Amino acid sequence: MAPIALNGTMNEATFNKPRAAQPATEETGESIRLAARSGIFTGQTSGSAPTYVQANLIAMPARYAGDFRLLCQRNPVPCPLLAESEAIGSWSALKSHVAGVTGRQIAENVDLRHDFPRYMVYESGVLTKSQCLSIEAEWTEEHVGFLIGCSFSFESALAAAGLVPPHTAHGRNVPMYRTSLPLCPAGVFRNSTYVVSMRLYREQDIERIRDITRPYVATHGEPIDWGWDAVTRLGIKDVTQPEFGDSPVLSDGALLLRDVSTNGEDVIPVFWGCGVTPQEAVRRAALHGTVLGHAPGHMIVLDIRDWDILPERSS
Amino acid sequence: MAPIALNGTMNEATFNKPRAAQPATEETGESIRLAARSGIFTGQTSGSAPTYVQANLIAMPARYAGDFRLLCQRNPVPCPLLAESEAIGSWSALKSHVAGVTGRQIAENVDLRHDFPRYMVYESGVLTKSQCLSIEAEWTEEHVGFLIGCSFSFESALAAAGLVPPHTAHGRNVPMYRTSLPLCPAGVFRNSTYVVSMRLYREQDIERIRDITRPYVATHGEPIDWGWDAVTRLGIKDVTQPEFGDSPVLSDGALLLRDVSTNGEDVIPVFWGCGVTPQEAVRRAALHGTVLGHAPGHMIVLDIRDWDILPERSS
Repeated sequence: MAPIALNGTMNEATFNKPRAAQPATEETGESIRLAARSGIFTGQTSGSAPTYVQANLIAMPARYAGDFRLLCQRNPVPCPLLAESEAIGSWSALKSHVAGVTGRQIAENVDLRHDFPRYMVYESGVLTKSQCLSIEAEWTEEHVGFLIGCSFSFESALAAAGLVPPHTAHGRNVPMYRTSLPLCPAGVFRNSTYVVSMRLYREQDIERIRDITRPYVATHGEPIDWGWDAVTRLGIKDVTQPEFGDSPVLSDGALLLRDVSTNGEDVIPVFWGCGVTPQEAVRRAALHGTVLGHAPGHMIVLDIRDWDILPERSS
Repeated sequence: MAPIALNGTMNEATFNKPRAAQPATEETGESIRLAARSGIFTGQTSGSAPTYVQANLIAMPARYAGDFRLLCQRNPVPCPLLAESEAIGSWSALKSHVAGVTGRQIAENVDLRHDFPRYMVYESGVLTKSQCLSIEAEWTEEHVGFLIGCSFSFESALAAAGLVPPHTAHGRNVPMYRTSLPLCPAGVFRNSTYVVSMRLYREQDIERIRDITRPYVATHGEPIDWGWDAVTRLGIKDVTQPEFGDSPVLSDGALLLRDVSTNGEDVIPVFWGCGVTPQEAVRRAALHGTVLGHAPGHMIVLDIRDWDILPERSS
């Protein structure tokens, strides 16, 4: 499967192409990680190993780690912090930020440098490598890796309620957008804005969608906004042209077109906080040194399950 | 002292009036609470009992309490939750939300119905009583009270660094504004926006101000925005006409005038999250039943001190 460009979207020619090869039977978080580590699996992970929690990566020089933790604390909806390197430089052991769950329970056999299918590399805020399969060459003893919750984690709950996200039904990546909605600044991280993911749903289902995703506070929780007027409120330039991921599809698989025709379907866009937000924050802060992130949509899949991070279980 | 109207500001005639009578010597959190409880002290609390943590109140029928906790969790900068009623209906005992601090340590001898100098009462989202001295008549066995951190808590740290907030130097209430900055919705709480407090400072001091207030995560932490262009970004209608509290003053005590003349002083407005935000959220959500809040600027003063809620002490 060709890498999905950071700023591009799949065109219609690639639209019906199935997702990249991946273990077909009894996927687990570990089996997906091992497949990514070995280079066999290089695709996006929406729908992979259902019910296993997925996470975003941002890794940065340790001198910025305190400000970054505070950024997450002040902006928990786009930046829900699940775990970080157990010690500065560690890529194989995690310290948990989820109450009642240990770092080893989150992911035991783990290598933050290889276990995401694809990565991005930033030097002083400028993207210098895109969609690479490993960051072993870039990771140093000064790096601290952070795992941020991912909205893919509640997609199985939506599917179980008959609300299959359109992109997963068609093996595509979720559309993600830059917005003008500001983050609360924290130290070096200022002038940053939310990145959001979007799923098209029928307006009549919005309260069920809110109810189902609400408990997933560690993976963005309920939507931050919805409806066609939300596109303007969020400062999204063109809902048919996401900055990350694939163009949005309707439930029948048709592309949402530029004139936002919905072929008679009474659908609205529903927006959630997105774990690509930290990469935008790093870019805007122009941090000195090497910062490492996952390629949007290409997540690490963990050992913990959706229900392990619901508040009823963790408090 | 005449009550300060919810939507009004003191006029210039009242400008040099000293703050309402209050215990002059060795104020503590408890002494301020007892003075408010007895009806002796009815004024605003900026500068009262320095280093004792101050808090905002919102009390609502128990059926909304779960959604409100989630609203705080998703919006910790304007809504940092310090404590709540120990049980439904309790006004005399607190359950702590601050790590490492018990409810009794936060405030032992406490009466949420009397210990704020002034209160506001809402019925189904409509303000029905303003600046009343007690809510004993309105409190029911179904109410849950929440205490939200207040930015007055870091004013002594600013003063100790030579950065006395202009309003405290002149015995005035802090100016507070409605904004267009959205909160992340949570259950019944949707379409809500931040309320912010504002202090005028020299631009050259902004990084020190950020550094000093940053650790106060339980009482709004560092500013969310600053500068004259932040007024537009936040959707504030007129910086000289705050919706709550008093009109802003310069460090020499002169009123900031409508043309935003600063008399040659090179000052900028600095904005922090404000604990009046939950009252706006309640108003916008039009909650059924009786909701109780403090009058803006008229806080409860607690037993814990500023340093008890700094992360270094509480983690």
